[in-house]
Amino acid sequence: MTAPLSHKARVPFISVDNMMKLVLKTGIEPMLRDLAGYIEDDFRRWPEFDKTPRVASHSDVGVIELMPTADRDLYGFKYVNGHPKNMKEGLQTVTAFGLLANVHNGYPVLLSEMTILTALRTAATSAMAGIYLAPKGSTTMAIIGNGAQSEFQALAFKAICGISNIRLYDIDPTATAKCAANLEGYGLTITPCHSAEEALIGAQIITTVTADKQNATILTDNMVGSGVHINGVGGDCPGKTELHRDILLRAGIFVEYPPQTRIEGEIQQLAADHPVTELWEVITGAAQGRRNDRQITLFDSVGFAIEDFSALRYVRDRIEGTTLFQDLDLLADPDDPRDLFGMLLRADAAL
Amino acid sequence: MTAPLSHKARVPFISVDNMMKLVLKTGIEPMLRDLAGYIEDDFRRWPEFDKTPRVASHSDVGVIELMPTADRDLYGFKYVNGHPKNMKEGLQTVTAFGLLANVHNGYPVLLSEMTILTALRTAATSAMAGIYLAPKGSTTMAIIGNGAQSEFQALAFKAICGISNIRLYDIDPTATAKCAANLEGYGLTITPCHSAEEALIGAQIITTVTADKQNATILTDNMVGSGVHINGVGGDCPGKTELHRDILLRAGIFVEYPPQTRIEGEIQQLAADHPVTELWEVITGAAQGRRNDRQITLFDSVGFAIEDFSALRYVRDRIEGTTLFQDLDLLADPDDPRDLFGMLLRADAAL
Repeated sequence: MTAPLSHKARVPFISVDNMMKLVLKTGIEPMLRDLAGYIEDDFRRWPEFDKTPRVASHSDVGVIELMPTADRDLYGFKYVNGHPKNMKEGLQTVTAFGLLANVHNGYPVLLSEMTILTALRTAATSAMAGIYLAPKGSTTMAIIGNGAQSEFQALAFKAICGISNIRLYDIDPTATAKCAANLEGYGLTITPCHSAEEALIGAQIITTVTADKQNATILTDNMVGSGVHINGVGGDCPGKTELHRDILLRAGIFVEYPPQTRIEGEIQQLAADHPVTELWEVITGAAQGRRNDRQITLFDSVGFAIEDFSALRYVRDRIEGTTLFQDLDLLADPDDPRDLFGMLLRADAAL
Repeated sequence: MTAPLSHKARVPFISVDNMMKLVLKTGIEPMLRDLAGYIEDDFRRWPEFDKTPRVASHSDVGVIELMPTADRDLYGFKYVNGHPKNMKEGLQTVTAFGLLANVHNGYPVLLSEMTILTALRTAATSAMAGIYLAPKGSTTMAIIGNGAQSEFQALAFKAICGISNIRLYDIDPTATAKCAANLEGYGLTITPCHSAEEALIGAQIITTVTADKQNATILTDNMVGSGVHINGVGGDCPGKTELHRDILLRAGIFVEYPPQTRIEGEIQQLAADHPVTELWEVITGAAQGRRNDRQITLFDSVGFAIEDFSALRYVRDRIEGTTLFQDLDLLADPDDPRDLFGMLLRADAAL
């Protein structure tokens, strides 16, 4: 029992502590840019992936989901929960962890915290979509909902789309104050606002990222002018939307994976055959992104497994040769693979 | 960064090493009996569970699966692969790990190795079904396929069904020799055989547990006499079966979860509406088990998520107050749950 773990039995594990070290060592903005690059690369080869809508287990107060995907060589999945009422109990609304495995033998090769990583990849995906969908030369973004995801969205749009002005609104002013304080020193002009309407003034991009599990109307139709890009992040669950239906009917709608978005996204409010464009096709050039400077574009983002796969790939590449992981004794590794029982017997002798 | 982990951020992790210690401390036979009890309890309350066929990602050489389920309070899932060709490369055919989480807030409460635990729960489930389906007073079991699962099956049927004679056959005689050697000293009479036909002589129970990913015919129709109970364990994947179709047509067929078994089990060879009985209904008394001493019964076992859930529940109950786990820093836990970004900033200051 005291022999060192065999190489095959070890799975590198990235704890929350080590993930924070990785982010801080890399820098938040460079890491968001890197992640957007990995995600864009994987969207570009979208047809190579084994895809399925995430597998959700709903309860009255939240949801627990598994999000698997695979290419020819790597399999990945994320465990993630969504419990909006957690916040009041001092817990995270969203926690997550994920895993990469070798498709050829099924052995895990990486286990990682993903609460922090999900916050980063969600923002990186939004901003990556923004490159293709937001009006050229956008400088100002409104963020409606100033919770745990808001700062990451602000910095991703700065680092990736060149946004310099952020206008904040939340029904809870302390959330806005928290977000504004956290974003000091990053070279952004931050404007806390007293209403959603005020936040939208002059914004070419509107990010909605609220957390209530209900069909809310964060934006009504008359609030959204022509030419705006809406980055809809918080509507990501059956019965959880943020935008009035009339906005959707006026917008060019871009989605990650239609079979999942039709269940979870803003478009759950529309007919099952309402036309949408898959973001990956915009990236490869197979479909058009923004058509003109008057079009309202909507990225109806719900978060797809490939984004987590990309993020885990990035982490795996980055930790090689560092001390930012620990080896986990997760896999039984008998000398003779048919002899699991014998491994137990030998362990007994060694006790 | 050096502050102790908060209680909320910690997830107890049971390594392979600690799982072996738990098994050896408990004793293999008592642990198999305990597991069968937990599994039987959960089968008895089957309708309370959120159930879904496992989510499989297939490649040319194997499969990686996620197996989730939940009751009102606990969510569980298992990651498991199946790669028959691994053995030749010195790797396990099946490796697994699993997790329990709190349904009310989505936070994980247990992470555990499950390669060893799956071997135990599979055998415990088989023997638990044997109580209800095998002929009364059975004393002899044939085991066709003497790989990693075989010893666990032998001891489970001894501990739970009172089997005293085990007849072994494998196309590879070294596998049979390994199994026979491992089973010495447990009070079983072990008979290595040179053919499947020889192994079946006098057996009231036939366990088939081979690993090839193909439609094989381990048992042909003329090999199976009346009154026998077949414990079919190795046919558990689309395109992976062990029994000739004609046996199925003569047998009373008992399954775990029909939507999954029709895809993965022996009954993938039959019409989609071929009658089967759900094992949980036999346990509650809602359906009849074995009808008479001439009936051929088949437990077409593919392994269902609830069995893993039961096994994880058992482990959680058993490790309380022991040192058989370590605390894993898997969950981000900012002081203010909306302030994930601020947690990162403060970590920077502490570096």
